[in-house]
Amino acid sequence: MIEKTIAHIEANKEASVDRLKDFLRIESISTDPDCKPAMKRGAEWVHNLFLDCGIESEIVETPGHASVLADTGPAENGGPTILFYGHYDVQPTGDLSLWDSPPFEPTIRDGAIFARGSADDKGQILAHMLAVEAWRKAVGKLPIRVKFLVEGEEEIGSANLEKVVRDHKDRLSCDYVALSDTPKFDMATPAITYGTKGMIYKEIIVSGAKQNLHSGSFGGTLTNPGNALAQIIASLRDGDNRVTIPGFYDDVLPLTDEEKEKMQALPFDEAAYMKGMAVPSLEGEKGYSTLERRWTRPTLDVNGLLGGFTGTGSSTVIPATAMAKVSMRIVPNQDAQKISKAFDNAVLAAAPKGIRIEILTHAMCGAYVSPLGTPGMNAAAKAMEAGFGKAPYFIREGGTLPILPMFKEVLGAESLMMGLCMPNCNAHGPNEFFHVSDLHNGARASAHFINELAQVR
Amino acid sequence: MIEKTIAHIEANKEASVDRLKDFLRIESISTDPDCKPAMKRGAEWVHNLFLDCGIESEIVETPGHASVLADTGPAENGGPTILFYGHYDVQPTGDLSLWDSPPFEPTIRDGAIFARGSADDKGQILAHMLAVEAWRKAVGKLPIRVKFLVEGEEEIGSANLEKVVRDHKDRLSCDYVALSDTPKFDMATPAITYGTKGMIYKEIIVSGAKQNLHSGSFGGTLTNPGNALAQIIASLRDGDNRVTIPGFYDDVLPLTDEEKEKMQALPFDEAAYMKGMAVPSLEGEKGYSTLERRWTRPTLDVNGLLGGFTGTGSSTVIPATAMAKVSMRIVPNQDAQKISKAFDNAVLAAAPKGIRIEILTHAMCGAYVSPLGTPGMNAAAKAMEAGFGKAPYFIREGGTLPILPMFKEVLGAESLMMGLCMPNCNAHGPNEFFHVSDLHNGARASAHFINELAQVR
Repeated sequence: MIEKTIAHIEANKEASVDRLKDFLRIESISTDPDCKPAMKRGAEWVHNLFLDCGIESEIVETPGHASVLADTGPAENGGPTILFYGHYDVQPTGDLSLWDSPPFEPTIRDGAIFARGSADDKGQILAHMLAVEAWRKAVGKLPIRVKFLVEGEEEIGSANLEKVVRDHKDRLSCDYVALSDTPKFDMATPAITYGTKGMIYKEIIVSGAKQNLHSGSFGGTLTNPGNALAQIIASLRDGDNRVTIPGFYDDVLPLTDEEKEKMQALPFDEAAYMKGMAVPSLEGEKGYSTLERRWTRPTLDVNGLLGGFTGTGSSTVIPATAMAKVSMRIVPNQDAQKISKAFDNAVLAAAPKGIRIEILTHAMCGAYVSPLGTPGMNAAAKAMEAGFGKAPYFIREGGTLPILPMFKEVLGAESLMMGLCMPNCNAHGPNEFFHVSDLHNGARASAHFINELAQVR
Repeated sequence: MIEKTIAHIEANKEASVDRLKDFLRIESISTDPDCKPAMKRGAEWVHNLFLDCGIESEIVETPGHASVLADTGPAENGGPTILFYGHYDVQPTGDLSLWDSPPFEPTIRDGAIFARGSADDKGQILAHMLAVEAWRKAVGKLPIRVKFLVEGEEEIGSANLEKVVRDHKDRLSCDYVALSDTPKFDMATPAITYGTKGMIYKEIIVSGAKQNLHSGSFGGTLTNPGNALAQIIASLRDGDNRVTIPGFYDDVLPLTDEEKEKMQALPFDEAAYMKGMAVPSLEGEKGYSTLERRWTRPTLDVNGLLGGFTGTGSSTVIPATAMAKVSMRIVPNQDAQKISKAFDNAVLAAAPKGIRIEILTHAMCGAYVSPLGTPGMNAAAKAMEAGFGKAPYFIREGGTLPILPMFKEVLGAESLMMGLCMPNCNAHGPNEFFHVSDLHNGARASAHFINELAQVR
């Protein structure tokens, strides 16, 4: 059966590329009100592909952009149910002059399709759709039940996704969620991302006098909110780049020996990484390797600073207010609520006298780790190897995917992150690309994934 | 003689107010290119007043706006020579809707003339001019030699003033410079400001990666310029609000007992001062009173902060760069060059690894203190008492007047700051005002000042 499916994928390579190009021509920028008709066309394009291969599908409207829910129906021999998640909306193009070819006119150069959304996420979700289509057209029935949830608001924070999932909890019930919104390790090597960090995003607003004051006439008689803010931020970390918030590390789980070994075994090129960022040296929490810090240790970073006079030259004001955006990435077993509270307390404790402090919380989300060694994870690994011709690396990610803890909570399902695109695919920048070979390899891997899961009883 | 002069001033009060109104109708905004013709009229107005009372006067052109130089000529009996300094240019009006009457249509309300430039500086310099005119018209000859330097670029940094003074050094030679660009103590009490702070204005630019980076994907592996900047700024002061830059206080002279006593004796209302700024408490360097800190202790203040994402909500970037404007007000005997260098060294010493630092110097100027007890200072004090009916307080000022050390250096003369306006005169804001009584009191005080100096042999 799998042979027939793979043969179908191979025989339709050219048509698949044309279909991706067709998908990419739709200007489905979810943040742009002018793109509302294109967003509708994007949902319909996905919906029609499912209908075309005889899969039940529905466009579910939301107060924002619609989601497409599809379902191949119960499998004859039971087995696990898989839910593929993806999104048909894309990022804005940004400055068009930075694109070598127009973002909505897909162009192939050096084996890659350049277009907005090619990697994030149209190319990747289409690979999964093509696999299911191949099963349908080459074999007829799928050996397991496969569902799809393709949303239209990923690039604007998935505001309505949780409600859609809760409202359609039974329809979406599954054993695993599979998604490709993470990268491969490098050109030749696929990767399964098994952990993402959580995030708590704060804004600290320090207020002093009712207006900016002359630093000569008033200096030395009141607390300067700019100095106070610097003092507060500086107090949150020590000289070893450890976060000093009381209790911050209390619940952090140490890495297992297996994880440590796997991480040390990865061919991670520190020099190339450093050169890519163009920093003088790599720095971070003392006692941990670069990859450990990046993927598994909680961090605290200033994201923005603003206060007083910021133009060219000089203006001698004592700022009335100063603001910092500060976020923390947290790791498994850290409690977001607890860390959030500890942060607020630490900020207030570090504040000097003579000012007022306001702390806003813009985001709060826990970390997610997908257990290794589950039948689903093993099937994903075998499928990636079959699709790409090389066993995947198991990696973690410093970024945050709030939908993963949500799927876990609402559907009770773990997520499998089977990335198909390149780490440098320019996902949110100009000249976003997706390798043609990764479309085909991804489709094959997805087909194998379904086949592998069918062996799980 | 002085009686005749005072009588002339008294007899011409109404005419003097009309003349000030006339002067104030000239829209001499030095920063506004459209006001070039008005600037020319401003210089001519001053020049013509001198010519009208038979005083030698010249409009000296500069690459910017002209200065007016006037001279009553050598006095018969010698005696000290005085140079009155002032300016005919004014600040922009700002938002016209905030003015209760149009800024260039002088309007009298509650005994005060409301107009742009009424206090800063047309009303004040006119008071000095009226005194000299009164001497000329009532007596004929002046008992001492009086010179004037009235520039047109004070509100834009006096860019060409030093060159004018150096080019006309002999013409401007004098024993004292007298100016009124500082306030009275309160409505009833005149003040002589005998000290101003110097200033060193720095900009610290911290650079990390070549572009803003995703704080999830890269956090924990590089030094965040925002955190680094906070760390650097925080290191420059300790918990007692003392500046920690090595050697910073080494050359600061302790206050004399006389100064301390005079300062403690001033009826300074701390509660009102705090309420005016609307801060929760007054804070500053431990061990010094509010007035001591404000007038006599060196300070270090953040004037501006900028880095990363500063919009509404959240964006998870590690800023590529972060910038702070930081200025220090220095006091007599501190060497600006030495403190500037010490600041740079302290910043570099506090910087963590993994970033690049650039430090710009936008301004550097020493403090100025006019010695107490000189014949000129004694004459000024007596004159203020005679003019205002109350002895002046001797106060200092946290602000910086770079022209004072320049006069000292080029002309070898100390400056006497005989302020005539109210501390809350809205000098650079809407509804700037100058009390009509202060115009007359100021003219009388100036006339007495000339008379008092004539007693000095």
